[in-house]
Amino acid sequence: MLKEYKGAKDEDNQKLKTEVKALRERLIAQQQLVRETKLPIIVLLEGWAAAGKGSMISALISEIDPRFYNVVSPVVLPEREERYPFLYQYAGAIPENGKIMFYDSGWMEGAVRKYLRRDITREEYKKRIRSVNEFERQLRDGGYLVLKFFLHIDRDEQHKRLHALKENFETEWRVTDDDLWQHREYKLFRDTYDDFMEQTGKVLPWHILDGTKKLTATRDALQLLVDSIDDVLENGKYVGKPFKESFPLKKMQKLSEVDLSPSLEDEEYRKELKKLQKRLGELHNTVYRKKIPVILCYEGWDAAGKGGNIRRISKPLDPRGFDVMPIASPEPHELNRQYLWRFWTRLPRSGHICIFDRTWYGRVMVERLEGFCSEDDWKRAYNEINEFERQLTDWGAVVLKFWIHIDQETQLARFTDRQNTPEKQWKLTEEDWRNREKWPEYEAAVDEMLQKTSTENAPWYIIESNDKKYARIRTLKILIKALEKRIEE
Amino acid sequence: MLKEYKGAKDEDNQKLKTEVKALRERLIAQQQLVRETKLPIIVLLEGWAAAGKGSMISALISEIDPRFYNVVSPVVLPEREERYPFLYQYAGAIPENGKIMFYDSGWMEGAVRKYLRRDITREEYKKRIRSVNEFERQLRDGGYLVLKFFLHIDRDEQHKRLHALKENFETEWRVTDDDLWQHREYKLFRDTYDDFMEQTGKVLPWHILDGTKKLTATRDALQLLVDSIDDVLENGKYVGKPFKESFPLKKMQKLSEVDLSPSLEDEEYRKELKKLQKRLGELHNTVYRKKIPVILCYEGWDAAGKGGNIRRISKPLDPRGFDVMPIASPEPHELNRQYLWRFWTRLPRSGHICIFDRTWYGRVMVERLEGFCSEDDWKRAYNEINEFERQLTDWGAVVLKFWIHIDQETQLARFTDRQNTPEKQWKLTEEDWRNREKWPEYEAAVDEMLQKTSTENAPWYIIESNDKKYARIRTLKILIKALEKRIEE
Repeated sequence: MLKEYKGAKDEDNQKLKTEVKALRERLIAQQQLVRETKLPIIVLLEGWAAAGKGSMISALISEIDPRFYNVVSPVVLPEREERYPFLYQYAGAIPENGKIMFYDSGWMEGAVRKYLRRDITREEYKKRIRSVNEFERQLRDGGYLVLKFFLHIDRDEQHKRLHALKENFETEWRVTDDDLWQHREYKLFRDTYDDFMEQTGKVLPWHILDGTKKLTATRDALQLLVDSIDDVLENGKYVGKPFKESFPLKKMQKLSEVDLSPSLEDEEYRKELKKLQKRLGELHNTVYRKKIPVILCYEGWDAAGKGGNIRRISKPLDPRGFDVMPIASPEPHELNRQYLWRFWTRLPRSGHICIFDRTWYGRVMVERLEGFCSEDDWKRAYNEINEFERQLTDWGAVVLKFWIHIDQETQLARFTDRQNTPEKQWKLTEEDWRNREKWPEYEAAVDEMLQKTSTENAPWYIIESNDKKYARIRTLKILIKALEKRIEE
Repeated sequence: MLKEYKGAKDEDNQKLKTEVKALRERLIAQQQLVRETKLPIIVLLEGWAAAGKGSMISALISEIDPRFYNVVSPVVLPEREERYPFLYQYAGAIPENGKIMFYDSGWMEGAVRKYLRRDITREEYKKRIRSVNEFERQLRDGGYLVLKFFLHIDRDEQHKRLHALKENFETEWRVTDDDLWQHREYKLFRDTYDDFMEQTGKVLPWHILDGTKKLTATRDALQLLVDSIDDVLENGKYVGKPFKESFPLKKMQKLSEVDLSPSLEDEEYRKELKKLQKRLGELHNTVYRKKIPVILCYEGWDAAGKGGNIRRISKPLDPRGFDVMPIASPEPHELNRQYLWRFWTRLPRSGHICIFDRTWYGRVMVERLEGFCSEDDWKRAYNEINEFERQLTDWGAVVLKFWIHIDQETQLARFTDRQNTPEKQWKLTEEDWRNREKWPEYEAAVDEMLQKTSTENAPWYIIESNDKKYARIRTLKILIKALEKRIEE
């Protein structure tokens, strides 16, 4: 790629200007259609220090309605880099439908620089490349138009530009130590960029722009952008097909095979509860100190006892170090983005325990059964979710998933109890009864979900909850064991 | 306050336990009612290092449904502290309706510690106190229940506790240098806390809790919480009355008196535009380097030319250092919080230019005229907005507000043009025609708004836009002048 790059050919300036003008007019005309078709667009611009990324973005957005695009410059915040997963800041910044987001450098720089600075190992670097491929594919499959550019200048040109910037009092602050280091290690960076682009160019190709020929580069980038938009406007948004990557899966029982009889006597329950909560409190202290992120996912039947279970887990935790995230139906601004966005933006800082009360698995349960997404969408979601969770465990998180399980008779008894107890009536809605009627469909969907997403790194546990006390103790024990294991590693 | 505090009286432990249990049960019973009445609750817990704030919060939330509350621990992020207004992190964390937010220390610590460390001057400290009073009053007036506690221990007790924490390998990391400094300067801190509480206790009182008597403190805090909730459930949410603080106001013309005839010839326009945009680009560089926040507010009649005007301002700006925030009707999660929340959370980092395309003034225009808020709400908003903007300029921001003005005939001509031009039709909606019919009501509301909110620190400019070219040049000139003035200061 960069190593063999010969540069753009010389062209007539007047002709280029005319072309750029015509392309800008086409882009302006496309604006409203992009909004109407709710097409989200991502333009990633990577490149050398002093290659002119800023002014390149200026040239691209010139004449576009400012309400129609945003620019995100990943500021290097140690906080964000160190306490969240690698893709956190990029995934949180994806545009809503109908808008363009320009990334003024992004995940490529985030991986390469960290690696060359030896902040991450070769193995971590490889994982980042895998994450990037997954991230980009998921966006594309979710209907995003993603374009990736690299703005290239050669070493002499970079030398000239850095020197000029440093000479000028008004601009010298723009040259960072990192930039100078990149310049000194130009070849090393070039080879690593090449490697990164080769390894991430299969899903979505990279486009090299010649940073020494600004008009040509502008024309080329605009051309690709405008043509790609036209393509979508003509042929419709891309919808990814389901695919199957091989994740190491744990064999799961079918729900109908689960023995729901286990129970606990009051006294034993109280004794165990006290002991386990004390232990969990101690472990939380260590988790906090060692900055281990912990993510607990709760799913289960209505009235299975999720709330009470979560409360028993929460009780011994230092409230400064944990959060419960209740997940309801997505809000309009959430529906306007890739479906995992609302979970990316809710991830805890490392060292915190985050309990999701319902989760991203809504995609393959309620959204599937109620037709809130297409068949391709939910079928693709199994692998997308496995990838997402692997990105969490790659980051170092402990991820545990609990299916709080009861049988139909127990649910009926609890619904009836809620109906007859004034203080509990609010807990029971019409929707609960409607869902209950669809028990068989839900059971099949849950069985499929458990089979397809119980990975080694983020396993599912079916928690027998006909007896809530038993369920609470079991969940506590699983959590404690997982934390102990992780702390020892 | 703290200086004279004698400590809680001794009480029988068994009796206290019974009381705490009863209060917890009342709180649980209130949960659903709080949700139904959409009451938002803020519990601020300040106090000494090692006073036990964390375990106090644990005691308060024990037994509450975790979906019903959140805890925010303002982590000291230099980024957030230095690049945003003082109240930014606290205002961004207010709970949505029907939920409780516990602040594990907050704006008191944020002001006092900064002041004693001499990071801020005495004058800035006083401004922070004023901001806090405004912030709390605005929340109260907006229907929030706000309770403020200070968890107190004396110097000997603090010594004992810090020592014990440091002795234990598992807990020594919890004692920070700041804590030790506070302990050494105990008296200084005590007097400053006292001063702060005295000056911020008039709108909403402070409650001192005895940190050495945990059960008593828990009982007292729960008692106040439960009683206050009962009070709201019985008497309804508080609705603040309009009030009038004296802000130095600039005299504004009435819209009907504005001479809309000024215009510019094409050639002069192009020449001026080029010159001014060049100058703005240079100034943006300096603004960015000096980390000056700049906030531009655009309001105006439909079809007055806001979009084109914003585009001319944006063009010379480095896209990495500015943002356009289009403000549409609030989303459900925004309606669920105090109305300024959605603007607090959109504030730019210092050094950035942020252009609001429509603003918080919607409150006293569309929300007023369409009945989306109560009369008390919009009448109160003039002062609330003046306070909000003063907090922005206290932070160091340049705040400029533009009313893009045209007359009714010009609007009709532009509407008609839009109607007859296929590429422009999307710009014209039924709502535009409806709003046009209400021109006189809107004009009266705008006149009142301009009179009441054009402060010295955040002035309004009426931009004559019958000729759009003239309007653009005028806006650019105002902006450039304001930036030059600010940079020289």
